[in-house]
Amino acid sequence: KHIVVIAGDGIGQEVTAVGKQVLDKIAAQYGHEFTYDEALIGHAAIEATGSPLPEETITKSLASDAILFGAVGHPKYDNDPTAKVRPEQGLLGIRKALGLYANLRPIKLFDELLSASSIKPEILKGADILFFRELTGDVYFGERGRKDNGDTAYDTMIYSRYEVERIAIKAFDAAMTRRKKLCSVDKANVLESSRLWREVIQEVSKRYPEVAVEHQFIDAAAMLLIKDPKRFDVVVTGNIFGDILTDEASQIAGSMGMLASASVGDTTGLYEPIHGSAHDITGMGVANPLASILSAALMLDISFGMKEEADAVVNAVDKVLKAGYRTRDIADASTPADKILNTAGMG
Amino acid sequence: KHIVVIAGDGIGQEVTAVGKQVLDKIAAQYGHEFTYDEALIGHAAIEATGSPLPEETITKSLASDAILFGAVGHPKYDNDPTAKVRPEQGLLGIRKALGLYANLRPIKLFDELLSASSIKPEILKGADILFFRELTGDVYFGERGRKDNGDTAYDTMIYSRYEVERIAIKAFDAAMTRRKKLCSVDKANVLESSRLWREVIQEVSKRYPEVAVEHQFIDAAAMLLIKDPKRFDVVVTGNIFGDILTDEASQIAGSMGMLASASVGDTTGLYEPIHGSAHDITGMGVANPLASILSAALMLDISFGMKEEADAVVNAVDKVLKAGYRTRDIADASTPADKILNTAGMG
Ligand SMILES: CC(C)[C@H](C(=O)O)[C@@H](O)C(=O)O
Ligand SMILES: CC(C)[C@H](C(=O)O)[C@@H](O)C(=O)O
Repeated sequence: KHIVVIAGDGIGQEVTAVGKQVLDKIAAQYGHEFTYDEALIGHAAIEATGSPLPEETITKSLASDAILFGAVGHPKYDNDPTAKVRPEQGLLGIRKALGLYANLRPIKLFDELLSASSIKPEILKGADILFFRELTGDVYFGERGRKDNGDTAYDTMIYSRYEVERIAIKAFDAAMTRRKKLCSVDKANVLESSRLWREVIQEVSKRYPEVAVEHQFIDAAAMLLIKDPKRFDVVVTGNIFGDILTDEASQIAGSMGMLASASVGDTTGLYEPIHGSAHDITGMGVANPLASILSAALMLDISFGMKEEADAVVNAVDKVLKAGYRTRDIADASTPADKILNTAGMG
Repeated sequence: KHIVVIAGDGIGQEVTAVGKQVLDKIAAQYGHEFTYDEALIGHAAIEATGSPLPEETITKSLASDAILFGAVGHPKYDNDPTAKVRPEQGLLGIRKALGLYANLRPIKLFDELLSASSIKPEILKGADILFFRELTGDVYFGERGRKDNGDTAYDTMIYSRYEVERIAIKAFDAAMTRRKKLCSVDKANVLESSRLWREVIQEVSKRYPEVAVEHQFIDAAAMLLIKDPKRFDVVVTGNIFGDILTDEASQIAGSMGMLASASVGDTTGLYEPIHGSAHDITGMGVANPLASILSAALMLDISFGMKEEADAVVNAVDKVLKAGYRTRDIADASTPADKILNTAGMG
């Protein structure tokens, strides 16, 4: 299997290095051969080539069996709203170019981290949510621009029937293998794109009579997610609502540093932590590599069909946590200093 | 003072009735004269007149000194994405018609409810956030429609400089009277409307050198709000992001049933719970009226300049909670059955 590592910006470098180490361990242990290549994206790519998404990165990605992705972003652009070239264009560009329309974000809580969350353990215990975030449509890719000499700015939230249908099918299929509950999140009481979204979900749901479907408005969903996370099984939603809800849901798992994601669709799958580039802690060796390690596990499972190997990785993470090892983001007052690890140590 | 009560749908009727009782108590105690009128909106208005916002409702509102608002919505429309006339058009219509561009949503935690939340008490204690949600722009009011024979649907997220500036000024002014911290929430790494938003906030911030400003992306803000609510003082954001964040923030206060809001701008102020019509509990007498009572307190303070009277209402709520009385939404395991009140009893 041939893997392209696109480390990107900030802690993307540190965490993908550890993710790769874990893949190597798996290869050695199970007798696989994984070969690697590297490609540029984001701020790193802008500095090197002027473009946030060099053509070569697409070519290499399409020629590979899977992509291990880090993060993109840089504070420089965040504080300059007028910048024309931005690191995030690289990430959005690769999602679109590879047709990665389904972003799976499993929110799974390791029992050992029950107390690391700001939410009460009794509310969390047993929570297990699988998000399907649509990833190549919505206000991320609609027409945008300025009018009135730049004094008015707009973006277009837009969905077509087939875009909703294909992500809906993936979500319903997953629900069939789980607790057969699906919650679709939209804002159909206000938005036309959400009304189309809801129509299509209702249609697709007829093909899955066994799946219990509920519709929630995004505002109510954002509230219910922390009030009672256990009520959710599979959640399917659009690109921007999914962006918001899954970051919020990271608090269920204790930290953003724990959450992996898989972006799949028409071509090569891309595996990426849901956290960002975190320039405030870059290079300090304190970044939590578990999201990248768990992304590697998703890669083994989804792109390579190596279920046993994927489980081995998840079990290893569980063992490390059970042994009391913590990065700072998931440490609590009771963690002894000698069990607080740096990124490298966790590999 | 002349007050229009627009009760609307579902529990809107029950809770505004209690809010009005409290206003009457205040009038009697402090020697004010409050006169009332009623007006229709939402599903109730559609049933009676065919329109979710009858002309008369606008006329009466403009002629009044303040509006006590209930809620709008009905499950009938939620499950029918093709409905052309919808209760929510009434609410959006009145916000726009009255120029109520600033929606103030204070998130204040009564100490007695510390344990009612799904979030840990030690994370919550001391949290005190004032949201400024822009209310007459954004994807709520941009052009929307269908294309491709109805198979594509779109909505337009749109902001103009003056719209951002006027809400920014209100938010910065408020920050000056509080802890002088302001967090602006956008998605400027992706959206053009957010980049304009951020530009304007940066400009306005120069006029308030004493206020410490931070910018957060909506996804990070949704996470930080439950990870560490105390880090926020004043939060200013657009219409849709504000809708989502404030519903989420209701969990800080223990329940949506606790949160009041004030919508102010060019004309008569409108005071409204942030909860919805809650048809699942309508008519059962279990709705929490405190959000409506606290909305009445905001009315006394903001529209009538009756600071002392407003404080008296808030203190009364505090006293009721201290005495152990609870509606079901804020009751916990330790609440004795005889202290669980129905809506009417709380008046
Ligand atoms: C970096 C940013 C463009 C991106 C997004 O909004 O999709 C990130 O927040 C994510 O969730 O992957
Ligand atoms: C009912 C709905 C249209 C409304 C909104 O989205 O603004 C509500 O959620 C609110 O927050 O007041």
